[in-house]
Amino acid sequence: MHGGRSILVLPNAWDVPSARVFEELGFRAVGTSSAALMVSLGYPDGEEIERCEMVAAVRRIAGAVSVPLTADVVSGFGETPKGVSMTVKSVVEAGAVGVNVEDFVHETKKLRPVRVQLERLRALVELKRRTGIPFVINARTDALRYAEGDESARFREAVRRAAAYRDSGADCVYPMGITDAASISAFVKELDCPVNVMVRPGLPPVGELQRLGVARLSFGPSAAYAVFGLLKRVGREVLEKGTYSSMLEGAITYEELNRLARKR
Amino acid sequence: MHGGRSILVLPNAWDVPSARVFEELGFRAVGTSSAALMVSLGYPDGEEIERCEMVAAVRRIAGAVSVPLTADVVSGFGETPKGVSMTVKSVVEAGAVGVNVEDFVHETKKLRPVRVQLERLRALVELKRRTGIPFVINARTDALRYAEGDESARFREAVRRAAAYRDSGADCVYPMGITDAASISAFVKELDCPVNVMVRPGLPPVGELQRLGVARLSFGPSAAYAVFGLLKRVGREVLEKGTYSSMLEGAITYEELNRLARKR
Repeated sequence: MHGGRSILVLPNAWDVPSARVFEELGFRAVGTSSAALMVSLGYPDGEEIERCEMVAAVRRIAGAVSVPLTADVVSGFGETPKGVSMTVKSVVEAGAVGVNVEDFVHETKKLRPVRVQLERLRALVELKRRTGIPFVINARTDALRYAEGDESARFREAVRRAAAYRDSGADCVYPMGITDAASISAFVKELDCPVNVMVRPGLPPVGELQRLGVARLSFGPSAAYAVFGLLKRVGREVLEKGTYSSMLEGAITYEELNRLARKR
Repeated sequence: MHGGRSILVLPNAWDVPSARVFEELGFRAVGTSSAALMVSLGYPDGEEIERCEMVAAVRRIAGAVSVPLTADVVSGFGETPKGVSMTVKSVVEAGAVGVNVEDFVHETKKLRPVRVQLERLRALVELKRRTGIPFVINARTDALRYAEGDESARFREAVRRAAAYRDSGADCVYPMGITDAASISAFVKELDCPVNVMVRPGLPPVGELQRLGVARLSFGPSAAYAVFGLLKRVGREVLEKGTYSSMLEGAITYEELNRLARKR
């Protein structure tokens, strides 16, 4: 799906019905949003959730959809390459066919040294070889936001990191925070491998992304941001006006909700 | 909250962030929607979910909000009054201060005989006495939809059941499916105890419900219906137009999403 002629549009879900909505609409695959999934279970984005609880959530979603599911495993839930490999093995056994792994350490708000991140990615490549399961490794870099220097220096660092991740065997690279067409185009040309971008304000529409050579567009947590924005409007209307328009208009039915509980 | 001068408006949540959104907006209490909660975990409405998984979800939500939480326990997850009592004990220990219990059997799509339902409710009243925990028992009847006879006969059966539930010690009665002002007014007058109504198309606005003497208005699964309706529009816009307006407009931020993960 990453090497085809058309861009892979990957909506990110956080629970069973959000994944099922996307599947029913006809998306070819679904991802998890780590931030939205963790918050839905009462944990902030990062690795505060227990690994087993995250894996259980992936298993619930993978068991409910018929399309391929890729899981965001944040930074891999492991101190060592072996730990990261164990996490990804669990997630793949839970039904995911791909993972996002980032080079950002949530606790310190710093980028992991490239050398260390490469060891972690190589452990995943080795896991693919050993298990024979061709899961997709999407290597995310947060260099555009957290590397040192000015914008141009951070861009160069993002390219340098993504190229190293690609060379270590990652199937797709994911420069977090890229939005403008010129940067996306430059990044795609430099890397010459599948590149993932995420929906953010200012991102070009899908057709333009495809012309720019982007292989994969993911929603990230944006659909969850939208949902909780609506929920605020729903609640505020009841409190302030005593009416239910935003709750009732464009809503699904009881039958449809129940249909979202499980596999078609 | 059920006997005050102003109607208790109770939004129903299904996970931590939906509950936290309502809390932050200023609602005085939050409920769970059994249908939405179960579907979010991959089960249809009813009692297919394991009791412990339902209780764990209640515990997650109760642990994340500072306002009182009431839990919908469907039909009580128990064959016997003792089983229902054990379920409610678990839910109260998980942090809920109230429960909804219905007289409808999901598997058979039939109403439970009044006598049997009264035994179940009395077991909960006995649980309150024994534990000294004054949790709210909201006794729901599905007679308006599932009793025999015409509309008028079903209304009379709903009144008869609700009155029996009230007399057995329920704190509030909940005639599922009531929407028109005349029926609501008649029901409230007949019962002369706290009455719960649910948001549905056609329900009068909050101010009118208060004038009609309704003690409690709950959203039921309607906020979840709205959310998944929006998610469909979000996904469809990306698929059909390649744009992200419905995903980006009115959305919350990353910081706000994270703030919804846990207690203020």
